[in-house]
Amino acid sequence: MAIRTVEQYLDSLNDRRVVYADGKRVNNVTTYPKLRAALQTCTMYYILENDPRYQSKMTARTGDGNIVPFVFLPVKDASDMLRKRDTVLFLARTCLGVSAGGSFVAADVLNALTVVSQRMCKEVKTDYSERVDAYRKHLMKNDPIVVGAVTDAKGDRSLRPSEQVPHKDFYVRIIDRQRDGIVVRGAKWHIARAPLADELFVCPTRSMRQEDRNYAVSFAIPVNTRGISMVMGAREPLEEGDYDEYPLTSARATAEALVIFDDVFVPRERVFLCKEWKFAGQIAHMFGNFHRLHADTYKYAEIEIMVGAASLLAESNGVEKAEHIKDKLSWLAFYLETIGALGQAAAEHPFIDTTTGLAYPNPVYSNAAKFFFADNYHQAVKYVQDIAGGIIADVPSFKNFRRWKTRTFIEKYLQGKSEVSTENRLRTVLLARDACAAYRQAATIHAEGSLASQRMALYNSSDWERYRALARRAARIFDGPVYPLVKDLPPFPPQLSGIGCKST
Amino acid sequence: MAIRTVEQYLDSLNDRRVVYADGKRVNNVTTYPKLRAALQTCTMYYILENDPRYQSKMTARTGDGNIVPFVFLPVKDASDMLRKRDTVLFLARTCLGVSAGGSFVAADVLNALTVVSQRMCKEVKTDYSERVDAYRKHLMKNDPIVVGAVTDAKGDRSLRPSEQVPHKDFYVRIIDRQRDGIVVRGAKWHIARAPLADELFVCPTRSMRQEDRNYAVSFAIPVNTRGISMVMGAREPLEEGDYDEYPLTSARATAEALVIFDDVFVPRERVFLCKEWKFAGQIAHMFGNFHRLHADTYKYAEIEIMVGAASLLAESNGVEKAEHIKDKLSWLAFYLETIGALGQAAAEHPFIDTTTGLAYPNPVYSNAAKFFFADNYHQAVKYVQDIAGGIIADVPSFKNFRRWKTRTFIEKYLQGKSEVSTENRLRTVLLARDACAAYRQAATIHAEGSLASQRMALYNSSDWERYRALARRAARIFDGPVYPLVKDLPPFPPQLSGIGCKST
Amino acid sequence: MAIRTVEQYLDSLNDRRVVYADGKRVNNVTTYPKLRAALQTCTMYYILENDPRYQSKMTARTGDGNIVPFVFLPVKDASDMLRKRDTVLFLARTCLGVSAGGSFVAADVLNALTVVSQRMCKEVKTDYSERVDAYRKHLMKNDPIVVGAVTDAKGDRSLRPSEQVPHKDFYVRIIDRQRDGIVVRGAKWHIARAPLADELFVCPTRSMRQEDRNYAVSFAIPVNTRGISMVMGAREPLEEGDYDEYPLTSARATAEALVIFDDVFVPRERVFLCKEWKFAGQIAHMFGNFHRLHADTYKYAEIEIMVGAASLLAESNGVEKAEHIKDKLSWLAFYLETIGALGQAAAEHPFIDTTTGLAYPNPVYSNAAKFFFADNYHQAVKYVQDIAGGIIADVPSFKNFRRWKTRTFIEKYLQGKSEVSTENRLRTVLLARDACAAYRQAATIHAEGSLASQRMALYNSSDWERYRALARRAARIFDGPVYPLVKDLPPFPPQLSGIGCKST
Amino acid sequence: MAIRTVEQYLDSLNDRRVVYADGKRVNNVTTYPKLRAALQTCTMYYILENDPRYQSKMTARTGDGNIVPFVFLPVKDASDMLRKRDTVLFLARTCLGVSAGGSFVAADVLNALTVVSQRMCKEVKTDYSERVDAYRKHLMKNDPIVVGAVTDAKGDRSLRPSEQVPHKDFYVRIIDRQRDGIVVRGAKWHIARAPLADELFVCPTRSMRQEDRNYAVSFAIPVNTRGISMVMGAREPLEEGDYDEYPLTSARATAEALVIFDDVFVPRERVFLCKEWKFAGQIAHMFGNFHRLHADTYKYAEIEIMVGAASLLAESNGVEKAEHIKDKLSWLAFYLETIGALGQAAAEHPFIDTTTGLAYPNPVYSNAAKFFFADNYHQAVKYVQDIAGGIIADVPSFKNFRRWKTRTFIEKYLQGKSEVSTENRLRTVLLARDACAAYRQAATIHAEGSLASQRMALYNSSDWERYRALARRAARIFDGPVYPLVKDLPPFPPQLSGIGCKST
Repeated sequence: MAIRTVEQYLDSLNDRRVVYADGKRVNNVTTYPKLRAALQTCTMYYILENDPRYQSKMTARTGDGNIVPFVFLPVKDASDMLRKRDTVLFLARTCLGVSAGGSFVAADVLNALTVVSQRMCKEVKTDYSERVDAYRKHLMKNDPIVVGAVTDAKGDRSLRPSEQVPHKDFYVRIIDRQRDGIVVRGAKWHIARAPLADELFVCPTRSMRQEDRNYAVSFAIPVNTRGISMVMGAREPLEEGDYDEYPLTSARATAEALVIFDDVFVPRERVFLCKEWKFAGQIAHMFGNFHRLHADTYKYAEIEIMVGAASLLAESNGVEKAEHIKDKLSWLAFYLETIGALGQAAAEHPFIDTTTGLAYPNPVYSNAAKFFFADNYHQAVKYVQDIAGGIIADVPSFKNFRRWKTRTFIEKYLQGKSEVSTENRLRTVLLARDACAAYRQAATIHAEGSLASQRMALYNSSDWERYRALARRAARIFDGPVYPLVKDLPPFPPQLSGIGCKST
Repeated sequence: MAIRTVEQYLDSLNDRRVVYADGKRVNNVTTYPKLRAALQTCTMYYILENDPRYQSKMTARTGDGNIVPFVFLPVKDASDMLRKRDTVLFLARTCLGVSAGGSFVAADVLNALTVVSQRMCKEVKTDYSERVDAYRKHLMKNDPIVVGAVTDAKGDRSLRPSEQVPHKDFYVRIIDRQRDGIVVRGAKWHIARAPLADELFVCPTRSMRQEDRNYAVSFAIPVNTRGISMVMGAREPLEEGDYDEYPLTSARATAEALVIFDDVFVPRERVFLCKEWKFAGQIAHMFGNFHRLHADTYKYAEIEIMVGAASLLAESNGVEKAEHIKDKLSWLAFYLETIGALGQAAAEHPFIDTTTGLAYPNPVYSNAAKFFFADNYHQAVKYVQDIAGGIIADVPSFKNFRRWKTRTFIEKYLQGKSEVSTENRLRTVLLARDACAAYRQAATIHAEGSLASQRMALYNSSDWERYRALARRAARIFDGPVYPLVKDLPPFPPQLSGIGCKST
Repeated sequence: MAIRTVEQYLDSLNDRRVVYADGKRVNNVTTYPKLRAALQTCTMYYILENDPRYQSKMTARTGDGNIVPFVFLPVKDASDMLRKRDTVLFLARTCLGVSAGGSFVAADVLNALTVVSQRMCKEVKTDYSERVDAYRKHLMKNDPIVVGAVTDAKGDRSLRPSEQVPHKDFYVRIIDRQRDGIVVRGAKWHIARAPLADELFVCPTRSMRQEDRNYAVSFAIPVNTRGISMVMGAREPLEEGDYDEYPLTSARATAEALVIFDDVFVPRERVFLCKEWKFAGQIAHMFGNFHRLHADTYKYAEIEIMVGAASLLAESNGVEKAEHIKDKLSWLAFYLETIGALGQAAAEHPFIDTTTGLAYPNPVYSNAAKFFFADNYHQAVKYVQDIAGGIIADVPSFKNFRRWKTRTFIEKYLQGKSEVSTENRLRTVLLARDACAAYRQAATIHAEGSLASQRMALYNSSDWERYRALARRAARIFDGPVYPLVKDLPPFPPQLSGIGCKST
Repeated sequence: MAIRTVEQYLDSLNDRRVVYADGKRVNNVTTYPKLRAALQTCTMYYILENDPRYQSKMTARTGDGNIVPFVFLPVKDASDMLRKRDTVLFLARTCLGVSAGGSFVAADVLNALTVVSQRMCKEVKTDYSERVDAYRKHLMKNDPIVVGAVTDAKGDRSLRPSEQVPHKDFYVRIIDRQRDGIVVRGAKWHIARAPLADELFVCPTRSMRQEDRNYAVSFAIPVNTRGISMVMGAREPLEEGDYDEYPLTSARATAEALVIFDDVFVPRERVFLCKEWKFAGQIAHMFGNFHRLHADTYKYAEIEIMVGAASLLAESNGVEKAEHIKDKLSWLAFYLETIGALGQAAAEHPFIDTTTGLAYPNPVYSNAAKFFFADNYHQAVKYVQDIAGGIIADVPSFKNFRRWKTRTFIEKYLQGKSEVSTENRLRTVLLARDACAAYRQAATIHAEGSLASQRMALYNSSDWERYRALARRAARIFDGPVYPLVKDLPPFPPQLSGIGCKST
């Protein structure tokens, strides 16, 4: 087969996977209410793959004429990357700010491993590179949802993996190496869509030292493998499936889970790193490089909705002409479009890995995009809440709108500008409230790396030599290293006799 | 009687008041789950009044030896105001950031009316002043929960009350004047604790012009009066009563409602403004002046908890020594204590109304306090969420902690620093998540007036003449008005011969 | 001739132009010390045009083989615009943050007039379009420095041109229309490089109404025309020509002037707008559109030096490893590169005027760039000053370094990290101090339009219909206008039976 | 004698002190033009002491009837501290933002040494305490200008004093201990008013370890002592004495210098710390505690002028009614008054040193004040420059106003709102430009400690135990330490049966 149908996907979920929520085992993930929104998002992926109108966006045709999912194709240049950006943006717009499916993270792990495994081949004679390629073929052929599992439980963050005190399993580690595979233990955390995925793709979250070598491990494995348990995280509680009340949260979700590996056997051909500790950090680093494009893109779609809601709110309150409201709206548009420009610049000016020819987004621009949107997100929320007025703090539930008595009150008294129906005003407020949910704020800061990690990435990717060389030229410091760009600049100021001197 | 018992209060709530929630009539507000948190807060007020340890804080003894609730006493100077501040702070600390009871808003309406009704007496010969005094006596004698009802539904905010298009009831108005009272129609919104109160105390929310004179109305009335209906607003949904999951939201709440007046008769002696439109704005303005102290104070208690939670989080994550974490914690402490200092300065340096001798908080400092905390609240939330780490975005529910299987997983993998138990870490995260709830952010911006209204209040209260006079002196502009402070300053620079001249 | 030599340029300045500085007439602008830095910048333009290494950047070859200055060529697409951006960036890097020459502003006026004059041709039958084209040919042939003169004196900013009280000349206006030309009066302000230019290119700064029609005027004229006087503005005083002390300010400058038109006659063929008041605003608007690219570009070069200086300072103080210093440096790099990405995106995604085929920078991205750099510039200054340490507040003058006694003290005690010579540290501090000069901060806010005008431009250029359509789709509001992008999106969430329902 | 006359002060300056400026020896500090502004400020101190109208502010009467300078009196409680604050504020208002005289810093050193020397007495048997008291008496009797000399040259900031590489004199150190005194070498930096002072009062700037013990030194000494040289720092260059052009900078200044100690002998009775390295940090810390009040106070006076100038600018531009201008003005008033409230709170709620009974400003509030004003100063500058309009970037010099030809142009074209004379507008712009000078920005960040040091001081002074205890109570964590305040709070929520439960 090549691309799966919705039915094939849904059927495959009934595989005795071990998922817990609110302390109880979930018998059937397809009918569990708290998973519905995430399931809708995952399902949408296959709907689009099979819909003739969107198939060309979602898939590619290989040389031998097979249709394969686009997400797993290698990205080689700016044009590939812009297409990838367009696809993610399309998915995120479709799914109200979340990119459907969810193998994008795993594809970034795949690309990172492609790069690092080829480097490893040169240095330590492994066949990881072949295994990675084989796994890529498997993914293209079988079209599963595979989720990247990168972040570990971490325990005490001031201690390295091998230094942890109560136990040693805060980071996933190898506890046994056997002839045909390895046994792993530990937990990965914040693993989006794990309960609804087919496979997990594990890689290290940080650099390792020799004493941490057992934590240098990467592998792929089906989610229903014996020993794997998932505990669902809770976002803000929601009245399940009430689209009117929670137009975003009830429609799409990412279903993060804590994934526990309780002595899980991984067959040899799916192991991509096994104690080669020197390469753990490279994988984590390259993963970050590849991955940045994703958040830079879907976030644009999420914020588009938020900014649009703010504009609708201003109108329905009758304040769209007030100078301070226009001021806030213009800032929101600036916020949105700067994210867009930075994300686009990251895709248009990629870096190329010299070993593999794989392209990854420009690290300065992509980190600038992530830093900019995460650093200013709470400001955006503040502006939206401010524009909304007090109604956003204690709007009566939409249920009041469904019964005639309360509907009468609400229709009459919650109307704003007369040109906007009370129902539409209410829907816009509920949308804005949902868009400003606190879990989304927390996720904006933490998903794809903290603000501090973004700043360090920016620090490390910036062209300090150029900046310093230009500053030295300006300061007339001539004893430093010669920098090409500066060497090519003409001398300034020009040496001309007579000008600027008092004539006698 | 003088002060009521808890039982008296609870019994009084069973009075056929008309409350709707989620579209349905609430039969009994004392057993309705979504009102429990607010009821706990209100009940706490009477518990404290009757507890010998706290009675002296909560009550005062009148000349004739009666115990009366402190909240309704007139405030005459800095010392009274500091006591009021201490009481509000004590209540807010007790109730996790919400000041128990809730007659504070109404007391501010009462004081505003005391001032304006005395001014009116001089100008338009009314007996409102006597009525206000009588109402104050009634409140002191009967110790009810009375809530201020100030904010109207408003409709199109770019239009005045009488200009609204679909109907004319967006602001509460007088539709009939009878020999022994008036009939009112309209709705007041965001009325905290209305479903659990005894009485409503209505006053205008803005200035009025002659054409709006029917909207110039103030009165007090029991909540179970015929024609009054309340529709409860919804904050973020909560699993009712789960203290572990939502330690703040499940414990205390303010239960805002939309209060509809459907042709309600108000007896003459409880009417305090009736079409004297010139005074509507003065009441709204003086209410704002009196009211500012309240938010400036309870917010300190709320943020104390938030800042404490951040410190506990830093420790349990093992990052309390990281420079950027200490940086954020120090900012949070700065944020908290600046709110405290400004609120305290507002109480220590009050303004005295010359007509009545009533004291109100220094308007510059109290508006600075409100503006500062509301303008920076989202920044504080960002820092708390940042310090918390990703766990705050998708922490598994506490229910997982109550079943042995999931508890085992969580105990093991969600531990942070080994000195802190996983349970305590979890509780702290849940507290921080609850403290950062989006409805609280929206409420922080909008409760007690928007940021824009704060800025305008600051603009209007600032001593521009002084600032300008000092600038003119510095700029050597001598043709402006003479300002006392500047007149008393010596000339500068001094006229001394010889100094600073090149010696010849 | 085609391109001028340096000598030709310098000779041409001796033309009896009327320039005042510090209250006195400047006899010779080429020898006046306070004009030296600006003259160096202007001269550099001709040096580069004539230098074989840079000629291809600075000039173009026309069909008939003539070399013409590149600056006056029409810009037709992204590729032209990127070349223009590269040229401006090259010039600005060469001249330490200022783009040499200075006809860029005038070229933007030229392009704006090209567009609007063609529109006018269709509506009001004028030959302005031919005159503009002829003027473009004149500029390409004679290679003068021509400066755009857009901003008027303005008087009371709350009043329109014709409403001003003390006199009517706050905006340049036509006071007489003669057979062969017009007579104008008024003043243009902040006209960079006017004292060193060959010609002035005047256009309106705002939209006009019928009563302001005499202010609807555009023309070009030599600076030494009878009736034109220029009063030089003062930036921060500098010790003229001390490159060591003021490495930036002493090397390059923009020499703003107040240009007074005291009943100046303008011949008919150089008049491009004469009372057609409806088009005044269009010219101002299109000028803004074209002009944005300029500041977005040279500012990058200016800030590159500032960021490089900060990095050198951190090192020479020995604090380059401190976390909070790296944090600030990473922000500075983020600031710089976001300006770069936005400016580049503006050039890569231009808008094309349909009448003329002229390209102008994408207005959303170019305004975002200008707003971003101006809104954050003071923050950047704060960080640079913070990293520099106290030395930047009161560094002893470089003169101390030239005498042995004080040099001994300074060499010894002002050394920082031992690897950096004291002289280099001093030079870096002096560079940073100069880069943080207050006049530059003020210019950053005001040059090319205020923050408020940027916000309004952003507001007006943003794609609100798209944002609102996506928000309506998310809020399930279906009665609004149909938006193409939304129409092409698939429905979401998908309608699937069975999923997310509790199994029975 | 008790208080000195102006003449006595000026005469005393002619004492062969060694001062260098711009590489040359200054022969006479009273006639050196670049010292004039600072000299005016210092002189003003004695003018006020001798002026009957102000004498009671500036001096106190001792038990035996002598008049002594107020500045050197010990401060014992809130009332003393409020008086001190009032005096500093009066001086700073008089001298346009700088507190005249300048012994305030030294008084803070004196108080710090008073506290620490008494602690030392208990631990290490020294007579420092007597020496400090004797020195206080000397100061009260002779009324000199004595300046605190705290900050060292520092060299490489990542190295301790004894670790510095090129030489060991970056911090002042003891190079010889003799029977009747010590010999010191090194340099103190940023020493305000040193060239115009009578004595220097030296103390350590940081904590020391045993290996740094030679750097643990404190002493007082006349500025003209053999071996002391001073190199003046340069602020922005100014046209000396042009009050119209630079109304602030030409009138008052602080005249920072680098003070070099080239093997200077200090007599025994003026040595207050000599190698007791454990106490160096305590002195630096207590100095910081005492000193904070000073900047918190004079800065208020400085910013008052800036805010007043902004208001005058808005008016003269005719934009005082624009919403975004009022918004910025209201922020400026908020900024100013929050500094005032925090500074006042620091004085009203002092801490008392238990050993000596000396009061120092509340460290939380005083550090909050310093952090708040320094962190937001650039924002304030941005707003002032924004309100001013482009005129602040390139205003023609006031000299143009003194010659009829240019005055005619300027009178006509630089007028703003017609009610404000052009001269007054010009003066206001020049004032605002001067108030926004870059050296003042740098000084605001660095004077009295960097932003980072403020944050650490806030971190260390905050009542974390209280915040954490309240958070634990809210999170229902009951196993931590018992905190008094929390113990006294009643339990919440109350345990009441029946409430909030669905009635059956």
